[in-house]
Amino acid sequence: MVWSLPHYILISIFMGAITLLYHYKIISVTIPWLPISVIGTAVAFYVGFKNNQAYDRLWEARKTWGGIINDSRSWGMMVDGFVTNQFTTTDATADELKSIKKRLIYRHIAWLYAHRSQLLISTPWEGSNQRGFFKKRAKYLQKKFGIGLLDDEITKTELHHFLPENEYSQLVNTVNTATQIINQQSKDLTLLREASIIEDFRHMELTKILQNFYTLQGKNERIKKFPLPRQYANMSRVFVFIFIFLIPFSMTPELMKAADWSIWLSIPLSALIGWVYRMMELVGDYSENPFQSIATDIPMMSICRTIEIDLREMLGETDLPLAINAKKDVLM
Amino acid sequence: MVWSLPHYILISIFMGAITLLYHYKIISVTIPWLPISVIGTAVAFYVGFKNNQAYDRLWEARKTWGGIINDSRSWGMMVDGFVTNQFTTTDATADELKSIKKRLIYRHIAWLYAHRSQLLISTPWEGSNQRGFFKKRAKYLQKKFGIGLLDDEITKTELHHFLPENEYSQLVNTVNTATQIINQQSKDLTLLREASIIEDFRHMELTKILQNFYTLQGKNERIKKFPLPRQYANMSRVFVFIFIFLIPFSMTPELMKAADWSIWLSIPLSALIGWVYRMMELVGDYSENPFQSIATDIPMMSICRTIEIDLREMLGETDLPLAINAKKDVLM
Amino acid sequence: MVWSLPHYILISIFMGAITLLYHYKIISVTIPWLPISVIGTAVAFYVGFKNNQAYDRLWEARKTWGGIINDSRSWGMMVDGFVTNQFTTTDATADELKSIKKRLIYRHIAWLYAHRSQLLISTPWEGSNQRGFFKKRAKYLQKKFGIGLLDDEITKTELHHFLPENEYSQLVNTVNTATQIINQQSKDLTLLREASIIEDFRHMELTKILQNFYTLQGKNERIKKFPLPRQYANMSRVFVFIFIFLIPFSMTPELMKAADWSIWLSIPLSALIGWVYRMMELVGDYSENPFQSIATDIPMMSICRTIEIDLREMLGETDLPLAINAKKDVLM
Amino acid sequence: MVWSLPHYILISIFMGAITLLYHYKIISVTIPWLPISVIGTAVAFYVGFKNNQAYDRLWEARKTWGGIINDSRSWGMMVDGFVTNQFTTTDATADELKSIKKRLIYRHIAWLYAHRSQLLISTPWEGSNQRGFFKKRAKYLQKKFGIGLLDDEITKTELHHFLPENEYSQLVNTVNTATQIINQQSKDLTLLREASIIEDFRHMELTKILQNFYTLQGKNERIKKFPLPRQYANMSRVFVFIFIFLIPFSMTPELMKAADWSIWLSIPLSALIGWVYRMMELVGDYSENPFQSIATDIPMMSICRTIEIDLREMLGETDLPLAINAKKDVLM
Amino acid sequence: MVWSLPHYILISIFMGAITLLYHYKIISVTIPWLPISVIGTAVAFYVGFKNNQAYDRLWEARKTWGGIINDSRSWGMMVDGFVTNQFTTTDATADELKSIKKRLIYRHIAWLYAHRSQLLISTPWEGSNQRGFFKKRAKYLQKKFGIGLLDDEITKTELHHFLPENEYSQLVNTVNTATQIINQQSKDLTLLREASIIEDFRHMELTKILQNFYTLQGKNERIKKFPLPRQYANMSRVFVFIFIFLIPFSMTPELMKAADWSIWLSIPLSALIGWVYRMMELVGDYSENPFQSIATDIPMMSICRTIEIDLREMLGETDLPLAINAKKDVLM
Repeated sequence: MVWSLPHYILISIFMGAITLLYHYKIISVTIPWLPISVIGTAVAFYVGFKNNQAYDRLWEARKTWGGIINDSRSWGMMVDGFVTNQFTTTDATADELKSIKKRLIYRHIAWLYAHRSQLLISTPWEGSNQRGFFKKRAKYLQKKFGIGLLDDEITKTELHHFLPENEYSQLVNTVNTATQIINQQSKDLTLLREASIIEDFRHMELTKILQNFYTLQGKNERIKKFPLPRQYANMSRVFVFIFIFLIPFSMTPELMKAADWSIWLSIPLSALIGWVYRMMELVGDYSENPFQSIATDIPMMSICRTIEIDLREMLGETDLPLAINAKKDVLM
Repeated sequence: MVWSLPHYILISIFMGAITLLYHYKIISVTIPWLPISVIGTAVAFYVGFKNNQAYDRLWEARKTWGGIINDSRSWGMMVDGFVTNQFTTTDATADELKSIKKRLIYRHIAWLYAHRSQLLISTPWEGSNQRGFFKKRAKYLQKKFGIGLLDDEITKTELHHFLPENEYSQLVNTVNTATQIINQQSKDLTLLREASIIEDFRHMELTKILQNFYTLQGKNERIKKFPLPRQYANMSRVFVFIFIFLIPFSMTPELMKAADWSIWLSIPLSALIGWVYRMMELVGDYSENPFQSIATDIPMMSICRTIEIDLREMLGETDLPLAINAKKDVLM
Repeated sequence: MVWSLPHYILISIFMGAITLLYHYKIISVTIPWLPISVIGTAVAFYVGFKNNQAYDRLWEARKTWGGIINDSRSWGMMVDGFVTNQFTTTDATADELKSIKKRLIYRHIAWLYAHRSQLLISTPWEGSNQRGFFKKRAKYLQKKFGIGLLDDEITKTELHHFLPENEYSQLVNTVNTATQIINQQSKDLTLLREASIIEDFRHMELTKILQNFYTLQGKNERIKKFPLPRQYANMSRVFVFIFIFLIPFSMTPELMKAADWSIWLSIPLSALIGWVYRMMELVGDYSENPFQSIATDIPMMSICRTIEIDLREMLGETDLPLAINAKKDVLM
Repeated sequence: MVWSLPHYILISIFMGAITLLYHYKIISVTIPWLPISVIGTAVAFYVGFKNNQAYDRLWEARKTWGGIINDSRSWGMMVDGFVTNQFTTTDATADELKSIKKRLIYRHIAWLYAHRSQLLISTPWEGSNQRGFFKKRAKYLQKKFGIGLLDDEITKTELHHFLPENEYSQLVNTVNTATQIINQQSKDLTLLREASIIEDFRHMELTKILQNFYTLQGKNERIKKFPLPRQYANMSRVFVFIFIFLIPFSMTPELMKAADWSIWLSIPLSALIGWVYRMMELVGDYSENPFQSIATDIPMMSICRTIEIDLREMLGETDLPLAINAKKDVLM
Repeated sequence: MVWSLPHYILISIFMGAITLLYHYKIISVTIPWLPISVIGTAVAFYVGFKNNQAYDRLWEARKTWGGIINDSRSWGMMVDGFVTNQFTTTDATADELKSIKKRLIYRHIAWLYAHRSQLLISTPWEGSNQRGFFKKRAKYLQKKFGIGLLDDEITKTELHHFLPENEYSQLVNTVNTATQIINQQSKDLTLLREASIIEDFRHMELTKILQNFYTLQGKNERIKKFPLPRQYANMSRVFVFIFIFLIPFSMTPELMKAADWSIWLSIPLSALIGWVYRMMELVGDYSENPFQSIATDIPMMSICRTIEIDLREMLGETDLPLAINAKKDVLM
């Protein structure tokens, strides 16, 4: 809750300034309460509508990553269960089978890290590319909660580790690395089919899972690249500012009537009302773009690691990496 | 936000006129605030309802195009992985296989551009076919943001480039070109099956993807051809106009009471309230029809190009077109 | 918008009557505004809720018909691509194959018209079967916009045209013709499988599409046969009437206070508020039952024709029927 | 609408009592309107939220039964189309094939009636198992609209008719009869596969439909067994009672001011407001549990009969039962 | 409803304290009602929004468990129908087949209990790990309704019972036991395929069900591990507290005006309004995290048992465990 304090202070300062104007009789106009309450209701509607949409974006992003977890496990299970000697004419050795499984699963883990990395490249409408105040706010948020907690070198290291040597440089230089990694998996399956390591049924099922990964990747990219339409998002901020601006012109004169000193009550009271609206608007803001390297992001790094652990355990590996823990109460 | 200024000015002029009538005592009636606030709440409900539906249309359109991205990549991946010599009796040369892959993928890119193009043909209920003011507004929007940024010649050029010579003239002359291009793909698959380039499993999977394209195409056509029912859409505009019309008859006399000059405050205040409602109504309006060649459209051209790049990269091409960049802050 | 005028006039007459009672001092009671505004808000909630459900019904109906378009195209594509000589022992002639394709596609078009026709049979809760005022309204709407624009003879003609001679009389006499037409398609597929015109993979895929048609048909039947629960639908009308009834008892005495003549302002003002609520209620009403032969119906005839054109174009036919055009601004 | 009258009368009596207390000056307190209107708005929100959830439950239940209709028709179509002599080594006679089809379809109809019957067993949270007033209300509703319209003997009769003699007693004695009937279908399919009446493709497709039936049955059981959480459902009733209780303490003193006799107006007016809220709350109540043998239930008997007719018509039977008609305006 | 009494008492005490301050003229300020009613409306919006999301989480969790029921039955049905001698070269004995079926079904039941157990491990944001008051509330709730009703030893016992001896210790020591149990099922299928107990069609269908289980497990884990974003959840509590805090400063002075003693009415009235808001906020709170060992949890134990009974009945077992009954009105 501490992060909301500066907003309260800022609004209080504004309310204080207006109250002073009334106190020194510089202004004396009274705006009736009802029109303000009408705007208040309308703005609450609008902000509620925007929050709903923003929350849906966050939740869909989390669902998509949840789907990546599920289908990654299925990928691991199928690779483990489908890669056999049953259809080969000359049997592959146990080691060869194991190295095929490892290659297919490791390449998938590489896809995870590549996909995560591509989602974190900032877009023009995210705070860090905007002008003036909004830019500063975004930079501030990234410094305080986001950048630095996890080194981005991580992506390169992981890709080196999980991609076959000969594929690495070719894949990282494509326009959309994640897309081409999946295609690489598909090419590998074609070769395995030719070598009869898998046959048609299994080839089709594995291809369907790859198709799922394209769908899931595409969903995340859609959320990343298609922001809440600017007209919706900006209007809600403007409406809230208008509403907050109008409050003291009704509140202060009303409280002046009661007693001399009661005019000062107007400051905390008006600020409280304004703050409630500002907060309603802000909580939606934070979930609008769930992949922008701030504290309220989807914890992609943690999800990738969870999948990595599950898949490597399926391969029988015991030297597993640790799960990601929250740093400064923020899970990456 | 600049685009909303004319609305504010227009509303202010109206408010000014009414205020003058009061000032010169031409009218003196006072409408009580409460009935107006009741209408205000009811209208906020109604506009909120309409905005929700309008936003859902926009979002569904974007999801459908997202689905087109995903399934296009799957199409590329499957064509790349399924077209092989494994089942042929006499092997096709590597070049023959490559030219088959290229044909299937290029024809798909042609479908993308054809589909986009058909979605941009304007319908009677879109602004540009309506009467009077609405027509003008639509024309204005198209001039300012839409038409001209991208030449429509693009469709013809692209279709020429991506369709086989002998299919071009036949396909562009059908009633629904996109539909028949997909059917052409299916006919091609039948021939490839006869030549054993693919076998039954692969034939079925590729056909299922074609079926997906029909579904996605149909979804976009539905959004294009079935507008928000006119009764819903027009009523919200009428309600907002009624509400704005009533505001000054309550606001002005109330503010007259306080002081001589305070009557003039009624103009910006009433205009502000009216403007908030007008904007709430308008943001929904812009997302109602997401394929009408205006700035708030789904950026179809950009999506088509993204897919084109990904697919041609799968074919191993390196002479790739550039991604579409935003012009005048508008992404096509 | 013209259609909403009678409502305004009717409400004005009521408001006028009450105002006269006040004018001649026959009544003088004043109902305070706040309880009325409370009801107003509650009713707005309720009507908003009902409108949402009504709109969802309309939209789901349109989605279902959209799905029928998509799967019909897939049906055409698959019939065109799957009916071949590849698996036959003695090849069928090109004409025989073509006549099989035509039979399967024409029978499907027959299903479209039969399904549409069955959806238009009126049910007890639709306006035309209700008592008194509601019955009259429904009849009026059907006369003005619905019945007569398209002759129902159309169904018989189409079924004769698209069904094989020997199947016609048997199928139209079943309890649910559409259901049995699909089953007839399935029986045809069994025969084609026996003749090896299709094999198992293709048989299954085509059967799955038939299964989709059952699902889509069932969805439309559900919307047709399961109306918005009567308690929801009727209550919203009653609530709106209560609200409208109460308005003048607050509005008129309030406006009497200001000046002698201002009492008459009460009539248009009260009527305006009442009319806004009535309209909000009514727009939902029109979309509640989207298959009742009125102007706000799903344009089923137009959709059937679109599909017919697409499918016959796939068969290579050039003598295509024309698309349905809007008559009196209404698309059937 | 008649059913809502007792509520109006009850509320009026309460309002009358309070009004008398004011009339004889026993109480004189005035609660200001605004706090009451705040509660009124909050309660409208809450009730609206509950109604949405209740309606969703009803609608999901109807969708599930709609799905049962669709998949039952597909089951009939597939059994009719898939049970052939194509894969048998020694052909089965036409009669044998027909009796297999009949067995599979009749057993499915038995599942329908068994499933319906199990859904009607009352659960602890349904009205008929609750205490005091709620129990009486539930009993009353069941007597007036529910129990007795259709004899429950129907289930036994139908199961006897549609299940093979030797399966009947075993199946009705299992814990979940519907579940075991589906498993029985699956066992039958295994035997038909062994006899080569069906082969693998068809076996898999038919099994998938059985899987669908488990899903649909499970959805209905979920709605039946997982009521709207008690905290949500009961709170909305309590809130409405509180709101109704508070109304007269504001309304009566206000109306007393105007004239001597006008205090009596408080009774119908307060009752009207109270009644609107009570009704809003109640319409949700009725759709909350759609399988509790009351008039607002899903008409399961009618749906089962519709399916029975369609399926038996597919078998070529002509001695079909009649569709269920509404009794006392209630469709079972 | 009894559980909500302490909240009413607490709020009353606060209201009483403020009223005393007014009574002894320690404070005399009056906050006008309208700003408070504006906040009241805004907060009602916000709380309604949060309740919707919280309810969706609960309902999705219940749907997921419903899906587990459905797919578990399908698993049982398929194992029962697919494990046969039809494709074996040397037939397995009836006992061998039965023990295979039992192994596959028992291992699935083990997955159920393992999955349930993992969902109950508490996370940092659930009440029992939070600070101060919230921690106490959570501990209190768990003591009163949750912990102790069912011994957690149950998990170990069940896993011992349903997993093969040699798999038990290996599986319970993995990072995610449920995930690895499913993979174990898949490995078993691979062996059965090698032994021709199942063939490719059946292998694929059974694998797809396993894939479903991964999806369902992942959905539950998502709900467990991704709470309602803290900013949404906490803000709603803060807003309600602010609103409750402000009420008496408007209510008490207003009621003081009427009569000397009427000031005391302020206590129950203000408390009632406050309580309504607190309750609205709280009912959402309880459904936010549906797997935290409190009374409003999804009754997972009861669902697991229901599945266990159905599956063991499919195996022909008659020594079935009893269904779980509610203890202290709480179903586990």
